[in-house]
Amino acid sequence: MNELDLIAKLTSSLPTNSSVIVGPGDDCAVLDCGKPGYYTLFKTDAVVESVHFTKEDMAGVGAQSKNFPTVSSEQIGHKALGRCLSDIAAMAGKPTAALVTIGLPTDFKPETIERIYVGMSRLAERYGVAIVGGETTRNPGNLFISVALLGEVEKSRCILRSGAKDGDALFVTGELGGSRFGKHLDFEPRVAEAQWLASHFSIHAMIDISDGLAGDLRHILKRSNVGAELLERAIPISRAAKLQSRAESSAKPPLLAALTDGEDFELLFTVAGKDAVPLLDAWKKQFPSVRLSCIGRITAAHGLKLRDKTGIRNLEAHGYVHFA
Amino acid sequence: MNELDLIAKLTSSLPTNSSVIVGPGDDCAVLDCGKPGYYTLFKTDAVVESVHFTKEDMAGVGAQSKNFPTVSSEQIGHKALGRCLSDIAAMAGKPTAALVTIGLPTDFKPETIERIYVGMSRLAERYGVAIVGGETTRNPGNLFISVALLGEVEKSRCILRSGAKDGDALFVTGELGGSRFGKHLDFEPRVAEAQWLASHFSIHAMIDISDGLAGDLRHILKRSNVGAELLERAIPISRAAKLQSRAESSAKPPLLAALTDGEDFELLFTVAGKDAVPLLDAWKKQFPSVRLSCIGRITAAHGLKLRDKTGIRNLEAHGYVHFA
Repeated sequence: MNELDLIAKLTSSLPTNSSVIVGPGDDCAVLDCGKPGYYTLFKTDAVVESVHFTKEDMAGVGAQSKNFPTVSSEQIGHKALGRCLSDIAAMAGKPTAALVTIGLPTDFKPETIERIYVGMSRLAERYGVAIVGGETTRNPGNLFISVALLGEVEKSRCILRSGAKDGDALFVTGELGGSRFGKHLDFEPRVAEAQWLASHFSIHAMIDISDGLAGDLRHILKRSNVGAELLERAIPISRAAKLQSRAESSAKPPLLAALTDGEDFELLFTVAGKDAVPLLDAWKKQFPSVRLSCIGRITAAHGLKLRDKTGIRNLEAHGYVHFA
Repeated sequence: MNELDLIAKLTSSLPTNSSVIVGPGDDCAVLDCGKPGYYTLFKTDAVVESVHFTKEDMAGVGAQSKNFPTVSSEQIGHKALGRCLSDIAAMAGKPTAALVTIGLPTDFKPETIERIYVGMSRLAERYGVAIVGGETTRNPGNLFISVALLGEVEKSRCILRSGAKDGDALFVTGELGGSRFGKHLDFEPRVAEAQWLASHFSIHAMIDISDGLAGDLRHILKRSNVGAELLERAIPISRAAKLQSRAESSAKPPLLAALTDGEDFELLFTVAGKDAVPLLDAWKKQFPSVRLSCIGRITAAHGLKLRDKTGIRNLEAHGYVHFA
């Protein structure tokens, strides 16, 4: 049994109760906790040394020698909370309170932990999130940081993965690919953008891109029971993915990087086709510095297809399956 | 800087917002999330292989050879959720929904993880708790399980550590000491008892005993700005602590075990002195099989004292400081 099979098995028969609106399988759990007109969003996410960052990352050294930008403990804290914020954003939610669990390795440095907290606290303050405690324990082999985050969303504005409809236009924020060359540690979660989207347009389905565009789009397609057709020339490819492709012959071609690299933390969403142009116009006025691209459409026919100048083909390339 | 200093430093200046009623430093964080008449309780707790259990524990083998009762993966799952339930109980709350984060070591066995989930799910079902997702990631060195739990409590019935008053009677449920000989893996969190207490009596302060009676009582004393006097002969010592003391000359004397062993997961609470006898009478009718002991009283004078037949002395023995 591989890890994905295990997760599928574990989550197939979990205990539930009447407060649960959406259990496992969307960006956050959605609960009705009794606030009139609102749902509660509940999410945990972990970053682990040697999986999501390295000892050298923590020290802010070493990375440069590998031609990566300098990264630091503050950025690891930023990433740990930022990942959860991105999931709250994917449901158009407002984040409210976080608990932080840190597993300390035997040789931990107090300064490192303090700096991780500085990175988390700065990001939390920017989004009005309270850090209300947590736990510090030992974890002999490596540093382990798990963040539990609460948020809320108006019931009528909560956006799931499951609402995409035939004919919807498919949008993505920002640029994709090459996140590991820096963005995965200093991305800005799209909390404000998602709230604006939900309050101005009828967004049918939304997800944040953590597994790569192709992989996360497949999550929407599966939950919505539809297919999609992507327009190759419309996919926004990041400068990092292009540069890397030029610098290293073994690197992914830029389009493949944009389709399959993980940890972009951008929003992928669908709206009715008729809303596509008004949305693009309004977005440009509201967020002039954040790119928004219409990259294709939802189809009744299942499967994921890519259209380029030569025609249309099935997209076999699977999204980067990260283990988390 | 040791770990406790680090935690004190980290939690001294965390970001907050208007929803926070109680931040770090009590059994759970207390939030006002907008449900009329209720507070939300929010808690995370982790159990870690080689810190809170061993590889042999997981297999349900080896333990017997060390003269421990057999323990198993199910019990590890039970403990992981049970610890959080015990914290919700300590505020007289009702647990509602949990997220589970599991860090898998390189050599993890899928059956072990499934059995851990069985243990958690059984306990969750018993208390009406929904398990609404979580995350599975890698943790190269060892298994790491973190549970995030939500609960709720009527505003007027939420019990903090900070409400103990001079003259209060001090009570403890169950029996103390020697938890590591089995109870730490199969304790029943005192959720029902705590809710009953809060709905029938004015409980001034409450905590669950995870660090040992002396250590956790000191938490109440510090938050309430009072002292306490314990009555030696009234402290309920577990059979496990007594047996162990007889079996091994190097073991703690039973009283010391009851004062300083960790992970009893019993409730320690205070009520006005006038309520002590009515409470004992009502408890006996409600929970005939759960021992309740009046073990001393709260004093205006600071410090923790122990009264025995020879007189009264300062209790220097510190509670078992577990790192969590």
